[in-house]
Amino acid sequence: MKNEKLNLEELFATINNYFSPKVIAEVNDVYVKIVKVKGPDVPWHTHDGEDELFYVLEGRLTMQIKGEPDFDLNVGEMFVVPKGVEHRVFCVEECRLLLIENKTTAHTGSVKSSITKSVDEQKY
Amino acid sequence: MKNEKLNLEELFATINNYFSPKVIAEVNDVYVKIVKVKGPDVPWHTHDGEDELFYVLEGRLTMQIKGEPDFDLNVGEMFVVPKGVEHRVFCVEECRLLLIENKTTAHTGSVKSSITKSVDEQKY
Repeated sequence: MKNEKLNLEELFATINNYFSPKVIAEVNDVYVKIVKVKGPDVPWHTHDGEDELFYVLEGRLTMQIKGEPDFDLNVGEMFVVPKGVEHRVFCVEECRLLLIENKTTAHTGSVKSSITKSVDEQKY
Repeated sequence: MKNEKLNLEELFATINNYFSPKVIAEVNDVYVKIVKVKGPDVPWHTHDGEDELFYVLEGRLTMQIKGEPDFDLNVGEMFVVPKGVEHRVFCVEECRLLLIENKTTAHTGSVKSSITKSVDEQKY
C-alpha cells in the first residue's frame, strides 16, 4: 500500500457503494480512508478511546452529536469526533469524505448495522 | 483544539510564512497539520520510525526520495513517505499541503535548518 502516489479522484472512481470506507494509506497507527456516503443509514455509535476525523471533499455532510445541535460540514471543512462521543452522520446528496482513524477503529463502533464493514472489507 | 468545526480556507488565511506547519487537529496519536510551502528550503531529512503523509490541496509539489526519480504531486494527490526514507520536497509556486504525522514527528527530522520549527511553534 505504501510508496505509491495516490490520486483520490481515481480512487473514488473505483468505489461503487455508499458507506463502504476504503483504506487508501497508513500513517503509523492510523488509516486514511475514503468513503462515499448518501442517506441516513449510519446508526448512532461511539468509538471508545478513539478519535475519528471527518474531512469533506465533496458535498455537504450533516454531523449529529448526541445532545447538541446538528451542524453541516461543507467542502474543505473537517471535524474530529472525540473519543467516547456518540455521533451519527447523514447527507441528502452524495458526499465524499476523507477519514482518519486508528487502525483498530470499527467504523460503526460497537454497533452492528446493515452498513457495518470489517476492516478487511475496507481494504483494496 | 477539539470539538470545533475546522474550515481549512480560513485557517490557511492566518498563515503568513512558508514552511511553518500549523497543527489544526489531533486524532489519537497523530497531528493533522497544514502548511504553505514555496521554494527549495527543505533540507534532506529522515523520520526514523515514523511515516509522514503529504496531501496537496493547492499547487504542485515535487517529491524527492533519495535514490529515486523525482515526481510531482498535484491537487488531490497524496503520498506517504515511509519511516526511515530520506526525502525532501520543493515547489516553484506556492503550494498548500495537509500533513499527517505522529505527534512526536519533527518536521525536518533530526536535521536542523533555517526552516525548522519546534512542535510548540507549530501550535495556534
